[in-house]
Amino acid sequence: MANSAVSIRVFSLNCWGIRYLSKECAQRYAMIGDLLSNGEHDIVLLQEVWSEKDFIGLKKKLVFSHPHSHYFKSGVIGSGLAIFSKHRIHDTFLYRYSLNGYPYMAHHGDWFGGKAVGMAIIQVGNLTANVYVTHLHAEYCREKDSYLPHRVVQAWELQQFIRHTSRGADAVILGGDLNMHPQDLGTRLLRSYTGLRDAYLETSQFDGCEDGITLIADNPFINKKELVPFEKGIRIDYILFKGSLKAEIRCDFMSTTKGSVPDKPFPYSDHEALTADLRLKPLISQETTHDNDSTHDSSKVAELVDILTEARTEVKVGLHCAERMRYTATRTGIMGLALLILELAIAAVPWLALGAEQPFPRTSFYLLAALCCTILITTFLLYLFYTMELKSLQGAEDQMRLAVGGLQERLRGVSVDHTPLRKPPEGEEPSDFDTEE
Amino acid sequence: MANSAVSIRVFSLNCWGIRYLSKECAQRYAMIGDLLSNGEHDIVLLQEVWSEKDFIGLKKKLVFSHPHSHYFKSGVIGSGLAIFSKHRIHDTFLYRYSLNGYPYMAHHGDWFGGKAVGMAIIQVGNLTANVYVTHLHAEYCREKDSYLPHRVVQAWELQQFIRHTSRGADAVILGGDLNMHPQDLGTRLLRSYTGLRDAYLETSQFDGCEDGITLIADNPFINKKELVPFEKGIRIDYILFKGSLKAEIRCDFMSTTKGSVPDKPFPYSDHEALTADLRLKPLISQETTHDNDSTHDSSKVAELVDILTEARTEVKVGLHCAERMRYTATRTGIMGLALLILELAIAAVPWLALGAEQPFPRTSFYLLAALCCTILITTFLLYLFYTMELKSLQGAEDQMRLAVGGLQERLRGVSVDHTPLRKPPEGEEPSDFDTEE
Repeated sequence: MANSAVSIRVFSLNCWGIRYLSKECAQRYAMIGDLLSNGEHDIVLLQEVWSEKDFIGLKKKLVFSHPHSHYFKSGVIGSGLAIFSKHRIHDTFLYRYSLNGYPYMAHHGDWFGGKAVGMAIIQVGNLTANVYVTHLHAEYCREKDSYLPHRVVQAWELQQFIRHTSRGADAVILGGDLNMHPQDLGTRLLRSYTGLRDAYLETSQFDGCEDGITLIADNPFINKKELVPFEKGIRIDYILFKGSLKAEIRCDFMSTTKGSVPDKPFPYSDHEALTADLRLKPLISQETTHDNDSTHDSSKVAELVDILTEARTEVKVGLHCAERMRYTATRTGIMGLALLILELAIAAVPWLALGAEQPFPRTSFYLLAALCCTILITTFLLYLFYTMELKSLQGAEDQMRLAVGGLQERLRGVSVDHTPLRKPPEGEEPSDFDTEE
Repeated sequence: MANSAVSIRVFSLNCWGIRYLSKECAQRYAMIGDLLSNGEHDIVLLQEVWSEKDFIGLKKKLVFSHPHSHYFKSGVIGSGLAIFSKHRIHDTFLYRYSLNGYPYMAHHGDWFGGKAVGMAIIQVGNLTANVYVTHLHAEYCREKDSYLPHRVVQAWELQQFIRHTSRGADAVILGGDLNMHPQDLGTRLLRSYTGLRDAYLETSQFDGCEDGITLIADNPFINKKELVPFEKGIRIDYILFKGSLKAEIRCDFMSTTKGSVPDKPFPYSDHEALTADLRLKPLISQETTHDNDSTHDSSKVAELVDILTEARTEVKVGLHCAERMRYTATRTGIMGLALLILELAIAAVPWLALGAEQPFPRTSFYLLAALCCTILITTFLLYLFYTMELKSLQGAEDQMRLAVGGLQERLRGVSVDHTPLRKPPEGEEPSDFDTEE
């Protein structure tokens, strides 16, 4: 029995839960609660649960079907990420992406959300599953996507986080709204680096929208114009998974909602809900290295180098853009300062030449001074912000360069480490270690 | 030969490298470069390398002795973290702490530094070492340490990061300025959770300052008054390490500088430099689980519960403080708004009663309006900031509560997971898996 396969049903939905702004928000949460409380789903991964009150409402409703839950908090509003599970959640960890849009693009709101990836370690039978839930920066305009470098860096950090934290895991499951099409740079970067497999592409059976799309034109909450040129819709929500040397994993069945819910006036959200039936089977193999990086096959390594080169180009575009913006902010700030000094100098003249004939134009003086100060403060804050953006972009670029270097060396078949090892100091015996740990 | 022990010498130093502000900064970097370029240290972990120019300067100087290096970028100024290595750095990853002081405490500067923990995966012979370098928030006043909750959350996130990313590692090494005394809550939290051992306590031989102190009263760059009541100094810089089931690790020798450098007019920094000679020995044992969490021994679990409870209390103190500050910001903002509305109302009276006798006091009007707007903007920014702080503190508290619950259940010996497993759908054979990965 210990080695028999275990099924887990994973559910993922972007709930579009902006209180008072999202349409039919409360009713939709009630519908989502009803759907989940029947207990058919083992692991529920929700995004855009912006209000903690809504999370608590769901938690109360799901207390019997999903006794274990976690709400990931970050940013001003929150990460919006929540997880419900039938199985005990042993540990959680949150990683905040270093880049996430601009605070002054308040109408896009991403910056205030504090986008992140949440991890929960869940024990399923004898197996340890690392379950990740995330939501990347939205794409508001595909033709001129000014957030592309940010999203690429998010995808980069997501793969880093998954790769580095999942070494001890028997199975890895990622669900969420990646805001990227299946062939987009970020998706390829994520999938090739981690070896995660797409449930939609891997499933034996599928029941859902054509091409697995999850943002569909037929959804009443969606503005069809925003989907152009993708008439029917786009696939940007995913359930990805991978096994390990200790467990195999496959997808038996996958389904998505289709824009409407039977007997209900509207769907659960503006996104479609994803459900994947995964089957985990423990393996007898007892090898020690858990290397699922998929960076061993040379053709895959070459592909990774290409993807990384593309990603570095995108990040560099972002770098130039951020540098230009910071330069503009600096220049505007200096102009504001010069204007202020000039104004003070002009004001000093009648003050020095006491009893001038013309009355001093106080109103204009104060208005102009206020304008100068506003410019100075704003440009200073922008300067700080762009500096932080630059640091994050440069950091990601550095890490990507390191990664490309390592992969290229592997391709050339160069031995990885030529450093001579220092021997233990003489006169000491290296063999009389006490056993520790 | 493959299983013989390998020695690595680890160096850690807080460089105090604030250009134009730190005393003798350039000369001290030259001294540090000279010291390291003799190639006696395998892994060099530096903190407070605030300027990338200084990092590049060191990199040029150490190109032969330490061909591999990484500079971790984050925040406005940078994380200040740098690593130099004789052995190839295979991968790096940076985790930014969610809390790091207050931006308006500009004279303390921590917020602008973007404090973080950097990880580098280094191959030493046949062993994989995960090397971490970090610098936690400074303690400016031990009696009334308003940053304590922030530092406790940083220690919590540090242990999470190390625990979750080091599962595949054969050895774990952490060096840095933790800004915590050996018995401080954060140090205990970090050490008990990760099982990391303190090189100073474990070393066979030690040569350095009394009690291993690293911030000493005799250092000419230090204001002795700040060390009161610790006359001689404090120990806040550490090299910690642990092995795994695949490798043993021990510390043969440890040394610190003693406040002065022979033939030089001043020391390397205001902190003392730490050097530890670690010896790694591969083990034959080939077990698969890498569980170094030290959460298996019941007395240790009980100790962990105590430490966690203490940490939760600290975090709750921080929560109350942040809530109070946010409340004050909100109230001040509302007062500013009320004042603005009142002023506009007063201004509207003479404007409505056209041709009033008294001249309109424009100067006072604009000054007051500017004051109101400044109050509104400042309190709004503070509100955003405190909300983010609250979310981070709540997030840490949630995770700690989950951890305490899990540990207590383990103490009670309750079976961890009672959830009935769902069997695979009938009619399908669970045994015909293809081998994957």
